[in-house]
Amino acid sequence: MFPHSVAIREVGPRDGFQNEPEVIPTAEKVRLIDMLARTGLRRIEVTSFVRADVIAQLADAEAVLAQIDVPDGVSVSVLVPNERGLERALAAGGFDTVSCFVSASETHNRHNVGRSVAESLIACERVIEGARSAGLSAGGVIATSFGCPYEGVVEAGGVLEIAARLAAAGATEVGFGDTTGMANPLAVAGFFTRAAQELGSSVELTAHFHNTRGQGLANVVAALGAGCRSFESSFGELGGCPVPAGATGNIATEDLVCMLEEMGISTGVALESVLAAAAAVRALLGRSLGSHTLVAGPIDWRR
Amino acid sequence: MFPHSVAIREVGPRDGFQNEPEVIPTAEKVRLIDMLARTGLRRIEVTSFVRADVIAQLADAEAVLAQIDVPDGVSVSVLVPNERGLERALAAGGFDTVSCFVSASETHNRHNVGRSVAESLIACERVIEGARSAGLSAGGVIATSFGCPYEGVVEAGGVLEIAARLAAAGATEVGFGDTTGMANPLAVAGFFTRAAQELGSSVELTAHFHNTRGQGLANVVAALGAGCRSFESSFGELGGCPVPAGATGNIATEDLVCMLEEMGISTGVALESVLAAAAAVRALLGRSLGSHTLVAGPIDWRR
Repeated sequence: MFPHSVAIREVGPRDGFQNEPEVIPTAEKVRLIDMLARTGLRRIEVTSFVRADVIAQLADAEAVLAQIDVPDGVSVSVLVPNERGLERALAAGGFDTVSCFVSASETHNRHNVGRSVAESLIACERVIEGARSAGLSAGGVIATSFGCPYEGVVEAGGVLEIAARLAAAGATEVGFGDTTGMANPLAVAGFFTRAAQELGSSVELTAHFHNTRGQGLANVVAALGAGCRSFESSFGELGGCPVPAGATGNIATEDLVCMLEEMGISTGVALESVLAAAAAVRALLGRSLGSHTLVAGPIDWRR
Repeated sequence: MFPHSVAIREVGPRDGFQNEPEVIPTAEKVRLIDMLARTGLRRIEVTSFVRADVIAQLADAEAVLAQIDVPDGVSVSVLVPNERGLERALAAGGFDTVSCFVSASETHNRHNVGRSVAESLIACERVIEGARSAGLSAGGVIATSFGCPYEGVVEAGGVLEIAARLAAAGATEVGFGDTTGMANPLAVAGFFTRAAQELGSSVELTAHFHNTRGQGLANVVAALGAGCRSFESSFGELGGCPVPAGATGNIATEDLVCMLEEMGISTGVALESVLAAAAAVRALLGRSLGSHTLVAGPIDWRR
């Protein structure tokens, strides 16, 4: 039922940092990314080329890319909202993968980027095609794939249509975001079973769960059982979404790695090294974080 | 794969309160238990008859039992460590079920109660037989069933031998405690599959998970898939274990109810009512708790 190995993308430096109210100095971001890049993680999303007046926290995207020191074999991705962002990203360089994003929910997409889903999807297609033309890999992430805080139910059929469009444009990976933690294990199992049937093996399917209601790792187990082999997570459980207020963020990379390795599923990641990075960001931010393993420590089997 | 309904025992008033450093006034305990008893929960563990010099927090066991007002149909259980505790409990009355406990790990049992596992097991058998003779139901809980912080690996075979002894003595329910959060979904699935095979339908099998490393609800999903239909949890995610230091406690009742009801598995529990009880205990304790749904609120499907 469970696979021998899975892929994990660390999204803390982008998804986590962008939700921090105080701007983190570039040097600190670089230090933390360099730590993460030496944990065994093979995919890291390091920043986003959004407009600086929209997300001031990530205004230093070029500087971050210029200063990080990432070993060979670690894929570096950046989030890009549109063609202008792609132009900036391509001028900067220093990464191999471009991720674009769109919400499955019309209302959430308008709240998030002030466009219709159809408009965002066209922008995504242009970003993917542009990235591919530049010799880069491209992926897309679909927010509110399992439910929308404004609209409620989001139909899987519509989500998978968007995924098919992204794949047709050249995305080699599509991520499904549970942006406000509305997914449950039964829904996740059904969704990924259907996604694998409809999208086949043409595109890698990635789960992006939030731990909003404590179900993050339970949803991972359900996704694993339905064939999902790729996950996004954030060290320290950073990140999340302003809705609902006060809720925790993405699943914590260290909690994900702890669970998977205990299950005999190889992540390639050294748990102690991720814990060191999470402890470093906790010290930097000066507050306790949502991560559990960061508090409890790894399991000591006394072997 | 998943059942239509499960049974939940709320253990916060015992397992949660006993871990609180400041003694909670009896009237506050009674108020919270009375709230919990009106949520739809059909099983509540309300106190323990341990020695007052060991756990001062629960020294008011008789008073709690005398003052609570629990509707018909809600089972009230008390934890009892030995025959002396049973005598006190029987003299007090006001409950229908007695739970005894033993660790699967020799070292943990000695740390916990200063006895060998064999000695504790004999005490459990006497408690179970005494409770049954008094016309009560009896159950046993086996701590460190999935791993021990002192010894590491705990063999399932030994745990199931203890469970068989408890069942033979007359226990109608045996709980398996993941006392310090060492279980993972693969181990849990294997354990409950084997437990059902070896113990059959003669005894109800209950899972008692902690959220120490964030895997609590993931372990619930694994246990559900392996046939487990009975769970223990604690409102607000109260409780836990002093090892490892600072770690969170039992899985939160409100997180468990939220997940199960979202999966279409009936708990009989009104989520909003449990959230009100968890909010009340948070206000009483004056600190944030580990519960996720208490922060995020129920999912709003806009229906």
